[in-house]
Amino acid sequence: MATRRKPLTFSGMVDAHERVAGRVSYVINLELPRMLWAKLLRSSVAHGRIVRLDVSRARRVPGVAGVLTGADVARRTDLFPSFGPILRDQPILAVGKVRYVGEPVVAVAAEDLDAAQEALDLVEVEYEELPGVFDPLAALAPDAPLVHEQPAWAGEMLGHLALRPKPSTNVCALARVRKGDVERGFAEADEVFEDTFTSPAVQQVSLETHACLAQVEDGRITVWSTAQMPHMLRGQLAEIFKRPASHIRVIVPTLGGGFGGKIYATIEPIVALLAQAARRPVKLHLAREEEFVTIRQQSTVVTLKTGLKQDGTLVARKATLLFDNGAYAHIGPGVVKNGSWASTGPYAIPNVWADSYGVYTTTPPAGAFRGFGYSQVAWAHESHMDLLAERLGMDPYELRMKNLLADGQTFSTGQVMDDCHFRELLEAAARGIGWDGQAGPVRQRSRVRAKGLSCLLKATLTPSTSSASVKLNEDGSLNVLTSSVEMGQGLKTALAVLAAEQLDLPIQHVHVSEVDTDATPFDQGTVSSRSSYAMGRAVTLAAQHLCAQLLDHAAELLEARREDLEITGGTVRVRGVPERALDYGQLVRQTRSGNLLGHGTYASKGGVDPQTGQGIASAHFHQAAGAAEVEVDLETGQVTVLRYHGAVYAGRVINPVQTELQTEGGATFGLGQALFEAMVFEHGQLQNGNLADYLVPSIQDVPRIGVSVLEHPRAESIHGIGELTLPPVMPAIGNAVARATGVRIVDLPITPEKVLRALQEQGTRTGEVRAE
Amino acid sequence: MATRRKPLTFSGMVDAHERVAGRVSYVINLELPRMLWAKLLRSSVAHGRIVRLDVSRARRVPGVAGVLTGADVARRTDLFPSFGPILRDQPILAVGKVRYVGEPVVAVAAEDLDAAQEALDLVEVEYEELPGVFDPLAALAPDAPLVHEQPAWAGEMLGHLALRPKPSTNVCALARVRKGDVERGFAEADEVFEDTFTSPAVQQVSLETHACLAQVEDGRITVWSTAQMPHMLRGQLAEIFKRPASHIRVIVPTLGGGFGGKIYATIEPIVALLAQAARRPVKLHLAREEEFVTIRQQSTVVTLKTGLKQDGTLVARKATLLFDNGAYAHIGPGVVKNGSWASTGPYAIPNVWADSYGVYTTTPPAGAFRGFGYSQVAWAHESHMDLLAERLGMDPYELRMKNLLADGQTFSTGQVMDDCHFRELLEAAARGIGWDGQAGPVRQRSRVRAKGLSCLLKATLTPSTSSASVKLNEDGSLNVLTSSVEMGQGLKTALAVLAAEQLDLPIQHVHVSEVDTDATPFDQGTVSSRSSYAMGRAVTLAAQHLCAQLLDHAAELLEARREDLEITGGTVRVRGVPERALDYGQLVRQTRSGNLLGHGTYASKGGVDPQTGQGIASAHFHQAAGAAEVEVDLETGQVTVLRYHGAVYAGRVINPVQTELQTEGGATFGLGQALFEAMVFEHGQLQNGNLADYLVPSIQDVPRIGVSVLEHPRAESIHGIGELTLPPVMPAIGNAVARATGVRIVDLPITPEKVLRALQEQGTRTGEVRAE
Repeated sequence: MATRRKPLTFSGMVDAHERVAGRVSYVINLELPRMLWAKLLRSSVAHGRIVRLDVSRARRVPGVAGVLTGADVARRTDLFPSFGPILRDQPILAVGKVRYVGEPVVAVAAEDLDAAQEALDLVEVEYEELPGVFDPLAALAPDAPLVHEQPAWAGEMLGHLALRPKPSTNVCALARVRKGDVERGFAEADEVFEDTFTSPAVQQVSLETHACLAQVEDGRITVWSTAQMPHMLRGQLAEIFKRPASHIRVIVPTLGGGFGGKIYATIEPIVALLAQAARRPVKLHLAREEEFVTIRQQSTVVTLKTGLKQDGTLVARKATLLFDNGAYAHIGPGVVKNGSWASTGPYAIPNVWADSYGVYTTTPPAGAFRGFGYSQVAWAHESHMDLLAERLGMDPYELRMKNLLADGQTFSTGQVMDDCHFRELLEAAARGIGWDGQAGPVRQRSRVRAKGLSCLLKATLTPSTSSASVKLNEDGSLNVLTSSVEMGQGLKTALAVLAAEQLDLPIQHVHVSEVDTDATPFDQGTVSSRSSYAMGRAVTLAAQHLCAQLLDHAAELLEARREDLEITGGTVRVRGVPERALDYGQLVRQTRSGNLLGHGTYASKGGVDPQTGQGIASAHFHQAAGAAEVEVDLETGQVTVLRYHGAVYAGRVINPVQTELQTEGGATFGLGQALFEAMVFEHGQLQNGNLADYLVPSIQDVPRIGVSVLEHPRAESIHGIGELTLPPVMPAIGNAVARATGVRIVDLPITPEKVLRALQEQGTRTGEVRAE
Repeated sequence: MATRRKPLTFSGMVDAHERVAGRVSYVINLELPRMLWAKLLRSSVAHGRIVRLDVSRARRVPGVAGVLTGADVARRTDLFPSFGPILRDQPILAVGKVRYVGEPVVAVAAEDLDAAQEALDLVEVEYEELPGVFDPLAALAPDAPLVHEQPAWAGEMLGHLALRPKPSTNVCALARVRKGDVERGFAEADEVFEDTFTSPAVQQVSLETHACLAQVEDGRITVWSTAQMPHMLRGQLAEIFKRPASHIRVIVPTLGGGFGGKIYATIEPIVALLAQAARRPVKLHLAREEEFVTIRQQSTVVTLKTGLKQDGTLVARKATLLFDNGAYAHIGPGVVKNGSWASTGPYAIPNVWADSYGVYTTTPPAGAFRGFGYSQVAWAHESHMDLLAERLGMDPYELRMKNLLADGQTFSTGQVMDDCHFRELLEAAARGIGWDGQAGPVRQRSRVRAKGLSCLLKATLTPSTSSASVKLNEDGSLNVLTSSVEMGQGLKTALAVLAAEQLDLPIQHVHVSEVDTDATPFDQGTVSSRSSYAMGRAVTLAAQHLCAQLLDHAAELLEARREDLEITGGTVRVRGVPERALDYGQLVRQTRSGNLLGHGTYASKGGVDPQTGQGIASAHFHQAAGAAEVEVDLETGQVTVLRYHGAVYAGRVINPVQTELQTEGGATFGLGQALFEAMVFEHGQLQNGNLADYLVPSIQDVPRIGVSVLEHPRAESIHGIGELTLPPVMPAIGNAVARATGVRIVDLPITPEKVLRALQEQGTRTGEVRAE
């Protein structure tokens, strides 16, 4: 075996220079000779039959090279006309009817954007409007308009899913958890409480919007895309174009953020079809307004009913979860499934019953979002925990401490837990804001301050696979081949560190590849905070595989026993005999290998029974806690977050600075969802699909953020922390606001209007809040 | 082990559609955003000191983004300022002095080519002319002007070379063969004859000229280049820029021909430096005129002295070979070495003495050329064979048959031969033109017809290494990763066939990668007719490695013994139990491997003692014969080739149509060298560096070409045939012309002027040629 390496820490970024200098090659910066520009005509109605669509005038606009409609696509027998990672329910372009305002109806490729726009302006389209359905509860009504008349083909993914929904409903997914006997649990409980919480549709708001450049030549399809899951996208394009995967090439440069919004195909099928039709490269780059109607987070309605013993011990949880998935399922069924597991939070509850529904509505499709279901459900279960504590007259910190999962206990899916650190994390978060005995409220004139806590458990995509190769060059430098996507999270740096560490090379001698599915090995995707963990392990295994070869070759060339050799400083040497050594370059050259290739694959195992939700939900669990101190202006309802402390379990930290920055970024992201962010629809028309009206935090909103990164001295694995800080933010703030004001906001975001209205409804007036 | 596969033959080209439709992405078609265009100012004198070089006005031209001189380069301590694959004797831009007309002196990058040209026009340069040396014999005179005052650093390559030349001469390479005792051989011979032959400088004339696009960002250098040896180029750029190889990325799309002219760095260092200076991408695409002064074949003077027994048995060969390498060594020393071995041709000669010199002259640098030394020397030894036969009164066919190497005999380097097929090839070539008893001359009015023969042995680059990976995708399709270059020879097709064959997949499911040194495994280079042989073997090994994994996984999943399994039709199945089978996609998915990667490396072993030239010269030997029928117009000296027959040994043919086409192409190529091609210099000034004055064969010159492709039923390996047909063409035609006219042309090409002058000198007139 390879020598056990001393852990390397590194606080820079291997791509720092190009970032600082603005030289990162994003997809939007790519151009190909003879490239055309694409634009989309989008539906103006939420639900309607297309009764007339005339593109003849559009086709005649000078400079227009291609005009495509859904009918053009549907006509082709060499295409599979619908797509979707689980249900193939989304047409490439609307066929027959439209299902949301913003759905692509016509695609144009032209010499420039002006010509493309002129063509779109000349498209004549008439809709026969149908009744829309904009609310997930309304969508479940027996007489609700059907978004999809036919259930969609589910492909091979179906087996991984919960129960298949019945036709003739708007249900697109249903996941169940059946652990213990929830009714007996309630019977045994001293107290039973039920609360309902909601979260709105929000958008990922990556700085970089979706972009795709496609070239189709002789059946070979190349797309440069802002894709978090290059190999999954390749598979989807292979299915659509009915080609072997080896005919599709997906190249992914650095992304300007992803946050779940760039997983699976969105615009790529359209762009590839335009490129195929025009026989020229085509680029589409979404405007910010289009981004809002391309993908979003599900809005949710989560009802939690909990039975407790008088001492606060949780004994039963019944959860009904409703995810509004918009017009197409996308990866929503996966979110619905994760949401069902999340319904207990990180607490040991012996009896659990959850039904989690994904429903279609005539609104923009929803998919993955940083936190993948756990985020919306954490808002519910952590608000609920504070309400339970209040009702029992317990300290919410103590109630949590009493029930947090410990090693050997079981999660909602029955999985036996290990490596649990929830109590340490909650303790660190609480300490970070000085919770102990000083949680508030503290009043000063019309302003009142208080503190709130929350905890989080989040699964990572399981089972999943990452594969990596390393190529040791003739001068001893190293190329790492990976299909993981750098999107600002610093993954290239992390992978370079791990490879350099195993081989004891300067990090400057290591280069981490771009993603190119023709050449870089399979990766499931840069999602679910899995890359440092899974791809990190694959790269480490690949480097170890290389070390083993180096030792074999060196043993032969140095005429030494393998066990007498050590790898250090880029050389293999006989221990204690400094002159008997070969550096890597010498080893490559003297063996005439040209290069030495190492390969590593990490595949996690797991899966749950779709009928009961019981099984292995996650290769390991992401663990975090949050604590907020807020100040509420009782006259305006304005909530100001004074400080926030995020505590995350990282396994092993390889880049302390980036870990801290990513945690701060996650907290800021959560702040937006806590206080501002909501996509506002009126009859399906989005009212604030732009960054003037849709508010994300500005630097002035950002509080003092503290970070505790818990490392485990024995932890071999590196846990991703990309999604850990965000979900606890909303309930920590909500709990602080409730403690400050005595009113409980159950519907995100916590806007001044809601706070003020709640204060008014409770008859709470300035002067009536107790100052303790 | 993997199941032994049934050989697959395929007569298409996997890239046929894009070729026919003109959609191949050559380097000249690539563009990057903000790309600049480069142009070079080249020396107008053959040898001179640069006494003044003022680029200040050039720098001020609007649109000019960068102007570089040799002094700018030499000033930088972060660069190694000279390059060359063996001797680092070539400055990136001329420093201090120029050594040939056409040497790059100033490089400009500008927004467009007009601005670049305007800048070049404004460069002020003054040379102090020095005496030039234009003839290789003159270059060896003791008082000859020195092209290089200092010997150049030879790097690690020196060990592979012949004796290191002394300083203060124009010798840049010397290779020796010492086998047996040549003087004793001459003493034992019944007859000793000596002849001298010359060949001129010729150019590779690829349809695509050299092109390079470079981008340098934050120390990372990416070049898209017309490079036959991507990894060697990467290594050269790493040395020049003093960076690890992993910082350099070489991408090579399909080339429009190479023929040896695109091996190792030529323009790439200049383009990369311009891109670095301008901080923008830069493209340089050579005009045809520049191509002629960038690289060429060496002109040669070859003197062969041979001792024979009266029965024609060859007993001794003494050879003095002189290669005019022009101003820089480039890969010339390798050619010089191969030329020394080639001096015996494919004949068994017990006593051999050869001294082979490469000399500098003040002419454009020379390097590799289809045939790599063997071509020029075959002209000599095969003309010489006919002269020997004539002097002994033997049939030249019989003389060859008597002496051709057979299994167990030794080559000039002492290597024991096996798998020899020279006699079969000569027999096939002779039969192809109806040689037997009808070799001519046959006269009709002023025209006379006759036939000629020739044989060829050629080594392949040894030792050398090729490495390949295969990536089996989740749908059972395959990506082949290789750094071998497709340049029209059909290599992508050949490698796809070999991978498809091992895996029993439809060839349409296999895709062969582009070259990208960041991701595709090491390959020595697409040179020396080695790719089908060496990379073919690497791909086969990689596919077999994959098969082994498939069998392992299938044994586990099918609960079967590995030896009961067979691979067929893209599935692994239990023999005799059709329902117990898994297709590749199922195997990849069920093992959750993401993909399965196979890897293979083929490294040939060999090498000779530089003092004696004795050792293993080649992993295997290329073997061929040629036969020509010509008609000579005795009034004009015009030679018309009526038919040509090439016979090549291919080991195993995988693509019969391409094999035939490549053989025809090689014959046509040789026709040009036989009859037309020569770079004509006057005092170092090239007189015909364009395709109006430098004649290559037109379709009207091409005779009826017959092809015999010899396969060996037991041959496991696929021998490249790219260089086999060309070298025999010139001597076969020369021998036919001599037989027709009675005059022997010893200096290529065989122009009408030379024929007519020779006829006149011999007093040969119309009517004096015997009609048999």
